[in-house]
Amino acid sequence: MGRRFDSVSFLSDLGLGSDTVGVVRAILRDAAPHASVIDLTHAVAPFDVRGGSLALARAIGYVPEGVVMASVDAATDRPQVAIEVASGAGVLIGPDNGLLAPAVAMAGGAERAVVLSDTGRHLATPGSVLAVRDVLAPVAAHLCNGVDLAELGDAVPVESLLPGVVPLPQAATDGAMVAEVLWVNHLGDCQLNIGADDLGADPDPLPGAVHHVRLVIGNGSDAVERVATWHGTLSPGPALGGGAIGVVVDPFGMVALVAGRRAAAAELGMGVGDQVTLRLIDPPVAVASPVSLRATRQA
Amino acid sequence: MGRRFDSVSFLSDLGLGSDTVGVVRAILRDAAPHASVIDLTHAVAPFDVRGGSLALARAIGYVPEGVVMASVDAATDRPQVAIEVASGAGVLIGPDNGLLAPAVAMAGGAERAVVLSDTGRHLATPGSVLAVRDVLAPVAAHLCNGVDLAELGDAVPVESLLPGVVPLPQAATDGAMVAEVLWVNHLGDCQLNIGADDLGADPDPLPGAVHHVRLVIGNGSDAVERVATWHGTLSPGPALGGGAIGVVVDPFGMVALVAGRRAAAAELGMGVGDQVTLRLIDPPVAVASPVSLRATRQA
Amino acid sequence: MGRRFDSVSFLSDLGLGSDTVGVVRAILRDAAPHASVIDLTHAVAPFDVRGGSLALARAIGYVPEGVVMASVDAATDRPQVAIEVASGAGVLIGPDNGLLAPAVAMAGGAERAVVLSDTGRHLATPGSVLAVRDVLAPVAAHLCNGVDLAELGDAVPVESLLPGVVPLPQAATDGAMVAEVLWVNHLGDCQLNIGADDLGADPDPLPGAVHHVRLVIGNGSDAVERVATWHGTLSPGPALGGGAIGVVVDPFGMVALVAGRRAAAAELGMGVGDQVTLRLIDPPVAVASPVSLRATRQA
Repeated sequence: MGRRFDSVSFLSDLGLGSDTVGVVRAILRDAAPHASVIDLTHAVAPFDVRGGSLALARAIGYVPEGVVMASVDAATDRPQVAIEVASGAGVLIGPDNGLLAPAVAMAGGAERAVVLSDTGRHLATPGSVLAVRDVLAPVAAHLCNGVDLAELGDAVPVESLLPGVVPLPQAATDGAMVAEVLWVNHLGDCQLNIGADDLGADPDPLPGAVHHVRLVIGNGSDAVERVATWHGTLSPGPALGGGAIGVVVDPFGMVALVAGRRAAAAELGMGVGDQVTLRLIDPPVAVASPVSLRATRQA
Repeated sequence: MGRRFDSVSFLSDLGLGSDTVGVVRAILRDAAPHASVIDLTHAVAPFDVRGGSLALARAIGYVPEGVVMASVDAATDRPQVAIEVASGAGVLIGPDNGLLAPAVAMAGGAERAVVLSDTGRHLATPGSVLAVRDVLAPVAAHLCNGVDLAELGDAVPVESLLPGVVPLPQAATDGAMVAEVLWVNHLGDCQLNIGADDLGADPDPLPGAVHHVRLVIGNGSDAVERVATWHGTLSPGPALGGGAIGVVVDPFGMVALVAGRRAAAAELGMGVGDQVTLRLIDPPVAVASPVSLRATRQA
Repeated sequence: MGRRFDSVSFLSDLGLGSDTVGVVRAILRDAAPHASVIDLTHAVAPFDVRGGSLALARAIGYVPEGVVMASVDAATDRPQVAIEVASGAGVLIGPDNGLLAPAVAMAGGAERAVVLSDTGRHLATPGSVLAVRDVLAPVAAHLCNGVDLAELGDAVPVESLLPGVVPLPQAATDGAMVAEVLWVNHLGDCQLNIGADDLGADPDPLPGAVHHVRLVIGNGSDAVERVATWHGTLSPGPALGGGAIGVVVDPFGMVALVAGRRAAAAELGMGVGDQVTLRLIDPPVAVASPVSLRATRQA
């Protein structure tokens, strides 16, 4: 027997009103009544493996020990797998289509993996197989009940698992960064695939110190240029009135474009995958405080 | 005292953002803290008793022992009832408007029933009665706490309960089946009210064996004809490129029209209740495998 | 140590598909595994403090003892606070922006309050602070684990907390009430900011007794007049066919405009904050029952 678990963190593209999510909860309650289901989100767009993998990566640092069950574009021909991480403290299950890869990497990397090939551990279906209901849910329950990974199917080398595809930013010759939008949240903030370090900006500027960032949105002859203000981890607050755009370090440590209470995505006409080039156009200027305070503060 | 329960499976038309759903969870947590609430779905369209009854029927085989609480179109004059099934392993509660009937039938039929007439078991309301909050939630808690059905109100003969209305398919003279759309899921797949047996098709065809199905969508002079491919319980996979339509046995054992990653409902202009006539137009042809393999495989 | 709690009732404007809600659930499961999270609703419109405060006020009478965590427009400069009510049976946490005020009042008023200034009780963020994840979630877990309010930050006088802003109805000279729409539910019912008493109508009329109510919707030259029927706490039922509008006492004890299964808000062109003047235009007329029955019934 393996370690018993009492939490199943669950992410899917099944949609908000899905009764399949309800059925999965019911199966888990029935087969592993001691375990809690933690719905991470079910609003991943159907088939959006990249979006789902990023949502899982944003959450993985917060999930408790136990099973992480993810199902996005699960009806493809890719096999369902179980991946052990963190010396057995966690097992991620889902399709081997890249969905789990970024979260596995953030959890320290895969230590063991199996294909969920033992159909004796699955539920019988009245029709075609619905993987999340017939394979993942019963397997999650087995894991919670102490069944070891090795009993769920054939071992596969962790190197054979499909990697995730997260776009890397590119450095341009003039010190600019060519980034793309990773995620647009419900407020319309646009998270980019760069950190503050990539941009060379101070993530924690003094209040009142003002950087500017030149944005080139899109590329080619349709590109549009905007000048935005840099706020680092500080809230831009009322500074973003009118049509002003701010560049911030978001709560996940990534650079994001924001527009106060307006939706930056709509205002800039940007969506996931769109390109934006950022260049710091001036050094920070201390507006309200003498520069000498700065060194003191960092000491 | 009756049997104690520790699960309340909950389905409603209250909507995804409903704070009434939240209040029901709070009432149950307060009055039966040992019980878990399993949200099946709250996205049933308001007043859509048939849609709700079908969603409940799809889920009922998976719910754990305990209470099943369903509320769709609950503000009508129909009384709220409790129905015992499966030798007391389950009690379904909700309005007697046909909502519970298909699930009760699938659980083996009603064994005892009461109208929830004992208002001493309900919550006082600050205004008009909100049945799901003031009647169903406290009754679910009482059931979880071991109160017997008989203490909740007046017994009614199970024959007097309102039956559900599920449309039956009709066989046409030429071997075709006249079906209708029962449900459109979030991917746009159209589940029909027929099983593979009704169509005379092999639910488990050999990979590569191709049937075709002639679809007549709608009726009269507006009817449109399409030829689709039969896949049974196999995933159609990449075969459904272009404008191709597939006919499958879905995860619930029903025949469904699918369009790969496209939405069949939108592409065919079909919605719940729309009519489609299906006729198998050729025998399966083994494309990639000799026919003799078939018998071997079935042995 | 303070009292331990085992329930966290959670309301926010994070949206239905929010993975931040999922992360908060994960943090609580990890840090206070004995506690249950009760999602009240996450569909409050972004930044809508008033709407959130009203949703919380509708729910507060039903939540179990424990922590109430609310987050609406939480990224402003207002501090996060914890407010103790009901002799310590409940602690409400959230931004001090008026969101908690109506619920605190309904729970008997604030008894102690602190600003959540002890950052040692918060989670480290990889970027900027996300208050609901980095401050409220860990504080809720600490409260569930028996940490006293006083250990969470600096005490503040309860009189210094920001009050809520709930619009009061106004009495017009001719006995009419000038009301406004507080809330439109998912059916399109319009809840007003008046009770049955304010209108001088019988909240519990005899079936068949008919009042009429003159509605003046909007004001000035664009105002529209309608005559509606009064139903009190009785269901209007089939009386509201055609274009008929009913005035009812809703399940929360407030007067509401309804249109049977039609959406009153759409039919009347009304939304939250819109003004409507109501005047009872005739005494109740007993249609089906002698008046003498009335006294008997009330005895």
